[in-house]
Formats: sequence, C-alpha cells, structure tokens
Amino acid sequence: MNLQFFDKEYKHTFRVDETVYTAFQICSGDKNPLHTDVDFAKGKGFKGCVMYGNILNAFVSYFIGMLLPTKDVIIHSQDIGYKNPLFLDDELVFTAKVSGIFEAVNAVEFKFNFKNKENKIVANGHIQIGLL
Amino acid sequence: MNLQFFDKEYKHTFRVDETVYTAFQICSGDKNPLHTDVDFAKGKGFKGCVMYGNILNAFVSYFIGMLLPTKDVIIHSQDIGYKNPLFLDDELVFTAKVSGIFEAVNAVEFKFNFKNKENKIVANGHIQIGLL
Repeated sequence: MNLQFFDKEYKHTFRVDETVYTAFQICSGDKNPLHTDVDFAKGKGFKGCVMYGNILNAFVSYFIGMLLPTKDVIIHSQDIGYKNPLFLDDELVFTAKVSGIFEAVNAVEFKFNFKNKENKIVANGHIQIGLL
Repeated sequence: MNLQFFDKEYKHTFRVDETVYTAFQICSGDKNPLHTDVDFAKGKGFKGCVMYGNILNAFVSYFIGMLLPTKDVIIHSQDIGYKNPLFLDDELVFTAKVSGIFEAVNAVEFKFNFKNKENKIVANGHIQIGLL
C-alpha cells in the first residue's frame, strides 16, 4: 500500500446518543456521578451529565477501522485533549488531516479534532497508525 | 481537596471479556476485520481477533471515575501507546503512578501501563486530570 494513497483530510459526523452512552458505560464500568447523576453534574456547573471523553476515542477507533482507504491498519499511539464538555445527543463533526507520512516505518500520523454545533472544539489530538 | 491526598500508586485488574468487547463494538461502530474476522487476523499473523486498543482507554475512564479517592475529577488529556496485541479474555494488570502534582492549576498527572499475564506491557501512557 502506497502511503500517498491516503486522502489529505477526512470528515465524519458522530452523534453521542443513548446507545453510544450506554454501551460505553457497560464497556468501561465507569459510573462516576459526573456522567450518571444530573444533580451532581449541575452542582459542578454543567447543564447536564457530562458524556465520557473516551467515547471520542471510541469514535477515533471507528475512523481508523472503517473510514480509511484500507482495512490493513493498526493504531500505534494516540493522544487527546478535552477542551469543552460533551453532552447527550451532541452531534460532532470530526476532522482528521494527515500530519506525517513515515515511509521508513510504514506509518501515518493524523491530527484530529471534534467540533460541536457551536463550532467549538470539544477535543483534539493525534493518532499514529501502522499498515499491516 | 488536597492534591497530596492521592495515593502514589494504583493497581487494578481488568478483563477484556465478551461483554466488554461487544459493548465497545456497539459504542464505536468499528467492525474492522482485524477485530471481527478471525481468518483476517490470523492472515496478519495474530493468534486471533485483536481487541480494540481503545477498550484500554475505556478502562482508563474507569480508573479516573471510580478508583480515585474523590469523585470530583475530570480528564484534561491522555495519551496511550500500544506495544503488544490484546486478545479476548486477556486479563490485564493496570498500574498508575502519580507523575506530577500541579497545585497552581489544580491538576494531577499519572503514568500508567497495562501488563498481560506474561508480564508484557500491552500499552502505556499518561493521563492528566483536574479537580472539579
């Protein structure tokens, strides 16, 4: 696979619906009150339960596994910074751009961000993948 | 909350069972054949379907949300590097150590790793949290 085959930019819309929220809670076992107790979350100044930030890393998994022009990929490393809170039923525009192509080690690096409807960055980060 | 209140080290055992695997697949929508097609995975040299690396980030969510001495926490940022493949029913020992306390910004940083039964590092990384 020629690494130049990757598009320069990828865009996808994700929605944090009840199914996604519940599945993440089962997967993680995380029942921290910020994510499960609306009164607790409001007491901390949020408008409702804050969604798990790592739901966005699950969406990164979808991007790498499903949206690239090849299925022969594996994640080497990734990082994410959370900038604004995420709430149930938020729709996020995900954008990833190729930020590095490393032919010697058969790897590609992406910069990504998730923006909400107010065009605010909810999170951003990097992913490095390898080709299998 | 006094930041010195955190333990120096946390340990927890996680298991990537069928429930965790299925819940992650529903959450992410990722059906890449490396994770879902045993023949594809074997063709790539693995002994079976490789589990999603981001399941480990869901476990990080559990650590932050459930295992710390306070529930009043939120993740600022995190990174992870994948070192060895993860398979269904693998049991992982998670270790996190406080690697920085930043009182001026009310934040704590952890270094973590996940080790499998052969004592190999499956993944490692960092988490920075803030106190709410």
